Amino acid sequence: MDVSDTERRIVTACVLIIGNEILSGRTQDANLAFLARGLTELGIRLREARVIPDDIGVIVSTVNEVRSAFDYVFTTGGIGPTHDDITAQCVADAFGVPLIVHPEAKRLLETHYPPGQLNEARLRMAMVPEGAVLLPNPISRAPGFQIGNVFVLPGVPSIMQGIFEQLKHRLVGGTKMLSRSISCHLAEGALAKDLGALQVRYPDLEIGSYPYFRRGDFGVTLVLRGTEKVRLAAAVEELNALIRTLGGDPQEGLSEA
Amino acid sequence: MDVSDTERRIVTACVLIIGNEILSGRTQDANLAFLARGLTELGIRLREARVIPDDIGVIVSTVNEVRSAFDYVFTTGGIGPTHDDITAQCVADAFGVPLIVHPEAKRLLETHYPPGQLNEARLRMAMVPEGAVLLPNPISRAPGFQIGNVFVLPGVPSIMQGIFEQLKHRLVGGTKMLSRSISCHLAEGALAKDLGALQVRYPDLEIGSYPYFRRGDFGVTLVLRGTEKVRLAAAVEELNALIRTLGGDPQEGLSEA
Repeated sequence: MDVSDTERRIVTACVLIIGNEILSGRTQDANLAFLARGLTELGIRLREARVIPDDIGVIVSTVNEVRSAFDYVFTTGGIGPTHDDITAQCVADAFGVPLIVHPEAKRLLETHYPPGQLNEARLRMAMVPEGAVLLPNPISRAPGFQIGNVFVLPGVPSIMQGIFEQLKHRLVGGTKMLSRSISCHLAEGALAKDLGALQVRYPDLEIGSYPYFRRGDFGVTLVLRGTEKVRLAAAVEELNALIRTLGGDPQEGLSEA
Repeated sequence: MDVSDTERRIVTACVLIIGNEILSGRTQDANLAFLARGLTELGIRLREARVIPDDIGVIVSTVNEVRSAFDYVFTTGGIGPTHDDITAQCVADAFGVPLIVHPEAKRLLETHYPPGQLNEARLRMAMVPEGAVLLPNPISRAPGFQIGNVFVLPGVPSIMQGIFEQLKHRLVGGTKMLSRSISCHLAEGALAKDLGALQVRYPDLEIGSYPYFRRGDFGVTLVLRGTEKVRLAAAVEELNALIRTLGGDPQEGLSEA
């Protein structure tokens, strides 16, 4: 095997959650965890997420900052028919291109709404930055779009998920991050010293420690992440031995954190 | 009433959620919505939230960026006893001060753990940036801390919430944002034009439109936010009339989005 074959390729992403309703605490975001898992499966590392308000200046500057810092950017929210749906215009501004009516998006909306109901407001959902590619929406027809490395998705979780499932073929992942998860009823502080030593011996892995407290039950879940299966297996074996030495009973996959 | 009394005072905040487990999709964040609601009640506007990884460089630079951009910063995550708990060190680095053992935090931990169990790892939880003030933890004794305008809290929701409830007296809010929420079964696109016109007539209010699709039920929740009760009431009255004109039945407070 050539060395280049074994080199790890790191592909990164950032998620922008756009919406005053998340920042006011009115709505609990449900999109970040879905996108995080979907990207992980594709070998794309979600490196940052930001929640920002429906504010033109903030959206434009944030889109420009993160699209140059990460390989992919996914936005959620702000692409409906109402006055507060400003994401498409902001992304057009960020790319310095006009917002246009996309003929195919318009046609899709025409087939979706009964005659006479595709009003001016709904036609806003056919507007995309010039040069954008439509992302099919299997649920409500108003498409998302891609321009450059930025994917613009709606905020309603079921629709966002439907569009994401269909855009996956556009994404090129890198080396996949694998993970294993071991739980036990030991206190985090009892394990900490040996766990730190394990991390030092496995600098190529990320070892995370997540205490849990639930229904009178407590313990810790240790999550090991890395790109090489054999290294993960070796570290898990050492970890299990360590937990047993301290009087614990390691259980794999019982994620509780 | 003096003009200065009626002036709106805007106090802003940013939340930093620190942790690889949120970015991998393993853990669903539960802290943002809680902090958002708590800050809103205090008259503090949450303007941005970021989810960032357990990475020293990223944490230090992000803390420094947001503490100069917002009045208050709240971090969650990374203050436990294990090697991956690096938030205190990063905040110390961001402020350019050493990380020290806080005598009172050490004393609290000594009273919490049985004799001999306050090991070196657990003592990490007594380390704070020099000059930091402890934030009492009513649940597990390991305190959070405040330095400058940065409040450092743990990631476990119940503990974070306990500390937040006790630190509120340290926060000085501005003019409170009030909100009213009207739901109806009209489609968003049917309302959009008139809603946009309403927003133009009430530039001092934020009017958000959030469609919902649930268990065969669909409709839209309109959220009006602003600092003046009478303006909100006037806008709600106009909105209710508008919804009725379009054949809908406005219901207050039935938040569905």
